[in-house]
Amino acid sequence: MLTPNLSYANLKESYLFYHIAQRTKAWLAEHPDKHLYRMGIGDVSLPLVPAVIAALHEAVDDQSEKNRFHGYMPECGAPFLRETISEYYQKRGISLSPDEVFVSSGASDELGDILDLFDRSNRALIMEPAYPAYVDANIMAGREIVHLPSGPDNHFLPLPKEGLDADLIYLCSPNNPTGAVYNRDQLSQWIAWANARGAVILFDAAYEAFIEEDLPRSIFEIPGARTCAIEICSLSKTAGFTGTRLGYTVIPKDLERGGLNLNAMWIRNRTTKTNGISYILQRGGAAVFTEEGRKQVLGNIRIYKENARVLMAALDEAGAHYWGGKNAPYIWMQCPNGMGSWEFFDKLLGEIQVVGTPGEGFGACGEGFFRFSTFGDPADTREAAKRLLNLLRK
Amino acid sequence: MLTPNLSYANLKESYLFYHIAQRTKAWLAEHPDKHLYRMGIGDVSLPLVPAVIAALHEAVDDQSEKNRFHGYMPECGAPFLRETISEYYQKRGISLSPDEVFVSSGASDELGDILDLFDRSNRALIMEPAYPAYVDANIMAGREIVHLPSGPDNHFLPLPKEGLDADLIYLCSPNNPTGAVYNRDQLSQWIAWANARGAVILFDAAYEAFIEEDLPRSIFEIPGARTCAIEICSLSKTAGFTGTRLGYTVIPKDLERGGLNLNAMWIRNRTTKTNGISYILQRGGAAVFTEEGRKQVLGNIRIYKENARVLMAALDEAGAHYWGGKNAPYIWMQCPNGMGSWEFFDKLLGEIQVVGTPGEGFGACGEGFFRFSTFGDPADTREAAKRLLNLLRK
Repeated sequence: MLTPNLSYANLKESYLFYHIAQRTKAWLAEHPDKHLYRMGIGDVSLPLVPAVIAALHEAVDDQSEKNRFHGYMPECGAPFLRETISEYYQKRGISLSPDEVFVSSGASDELGDILDLFDRSNRALIMEPAYPAYVDANIMAGREIVHLPSGPDNHFLPLPKEGLDADLIYLCSPNNPTGAVYNRDQLSQWIAWANARGAVILFDAAYEAFIEEDLPRSIFEIPGARTCAIEICSLSKTAGFTGTRLGYTVIPKDLERGGLNLNAMWIRNRTTKTNGISYILQRGGAAVFTEEGRKQVLGNIRIYKENARVLMAALDEAGAHYWGGKNAPYIWMQCPNGMGSWEFFDKLLGEIQVVGTPGEGFGACGEGFFRFSTFGDPADTREAAKRLLNLLRK
Repeated sequence: MLTPNLSYANLKESYLFYHIAQRTKAWLAEHPDKHLYRMGIGDVSLPLVPAVIAALHEAVDDQSEKNRFHGYMPECGAPFLRETISEYYQKRGISLSPDEVFVSSGASDELGDILDLFDRSNRALIMEPAYPAYVDANIMAGREIVHLPSGPDNHFLPLPKEGLDADLIYLCSPNNPTGAVYNRDQLSQWIAWANARGAVILFDAAYEAFIEEDLPRSIFEIPGARTCAIEICSLSKTAGFTGTRLGYTVIPKDLERGGLNLNAMWIRNRTTKTNGISYILQRGGAAVFTEEGRKQVLGNIRIYKENARVLMAALDEAGAHYWGGKNAPYIWMQCPNGMGSWEFFDKLLGEIQVVGTPGEGFGACGEGFFRFSTFGDPADTREAAKRLLNLLRK
């Protein structure tokens, strides 16, 4: 008799964004004439940039001709893309060999897959509020989870403290959902702690492209990271690849635990469990790192940053408390008048048709907070900011 | 202290195809002027068909315009593709709801990912010779493996027998590497056995498009399969997607074990661990199932079948023993004069520059056999057949 993975029975009812989608759909069914201002799920609204589109078309053409056709790709990534990404790090002063860079289908896929490298006995440290998949993926694996809550007193940037006991450390900076960003000194503290204990840090750098101040965009800017960290990156927000899919992961060759080298383990994992990432998508991804592509994606990021500015101006004017928005594409707001997250969600949806994300969906300590994504349509964002200001002023 | 997944230490040295690639590369370095006739790895040689190319270009154009742009896709697959695939089954008399069809990045990815649904205590039954990743993925998960060897006496089609004890059953038909195909009665025996024990069958149908006789192309043609089987399919060989990547998986809603519904578990897995499959690739995949696309991919399959015919004619003329080639894209040959697999590999490489795959790489009982892929270039295949005939005649 087959035994299913019984850990699935320990998962909570449904996935946050699915839940929001259902709630929004139900409301729309009752109000079919209303336009919604969607600032809930962190999906982008701008199309792919011309340099990426051109590269994708060219790659499709390659697949149409026998002499240019690409069959199975190397499982860990096409050399042209691994080299391009290692050069991208090099330009920022980080020295990585191309075979420390692995191409992935995206950060969410990789955050799930990479857990195969770790025994289920490890304790996973999740600093909350957090992307809900961190928790769920570890519950599925039967791992014990250590929740480290954060709040306004530590600016949503928890640091190692006495008595903290965990092996697998999730760090997301710039943070989803709070928009908080660790500085070099703070990251150094986590690295020292991880190296001292033999823990491993999973550093989610999906939002690095939004940093504008002098803050670390990669954990490998910090000495000591090569012996304790894996960095998981994505083109979803950097270059609008949410529906196109591509990401990359850095696993340094210096990272060893229990006598096993994690870089070598991942090569073995990929060569067994995948046949590589689509040639077409890898060509599209490589175009992001060209001079032209880089300039174009930064143009889109500027538009999202203008969205953030518009929203922050409205919140400032209303005297609301919030975090993020500057070096991150998310604004994390304290719900007014002690309202609960889902209460505020329903109020915004019902009264001004603005859809955001209830903070409680990111962990218990997110209750009383609310996340706005700045990836929406600029006109919608301006209107939402206006409506939000009117509502909060009442 | 983090504990890595120590099961990785139980893996054998290196992956079969990687090993062949290294051995071939070393030989080529010593003989840089020689052309190789590659019939080793099962990669395709023909480009994508025009209907797929047109759909890919159109999808890329969609991603370039704000009003046609697609962000995050539904995690289990785009409705248009899930519906198209369920209609493809319907045409063959198999009734599946679109939400029993999951879009994947390809069969090899899915064969790895799907194991997350099962507890590590399950015993995995691998009928050998077999695709090496079946074994390795289960070793990585720490599962006990039951090896069920096959050979010429059972035509490489093992059946359930007394005393056989396992929970997770891998069936690959048409088979890689032997090319053997189960008939309806034989599959019914496995289904009855699995239902009686509560086992689950992972049915690898990657080569279904090559069946030309009246043999089952889906396990769901057989009554009883809906309560015990998952079918994993791929466009890699059907439509030349080895480097483009797309597949699909069928998990019937009737499949339950230990109080959990496997279809619901997989929805939960996908919504947690992925953000869906590339819109562009799903559009390309959908084109395979249109009337035009279907006609075009069958045209390519005919070319590969002609390769098979040419190779089989040479082997027949040489009086060699072999299996497959008719309903499958692989020919499984007994090495001549009691030679070992790797010995025959070296002989073919060194004397006639033909690269095949040593049977021993597919499990111990594959020793003394050799696999030829029929996906090669037609001109190369004709020359290889000629050389093979000369060599075997000596």
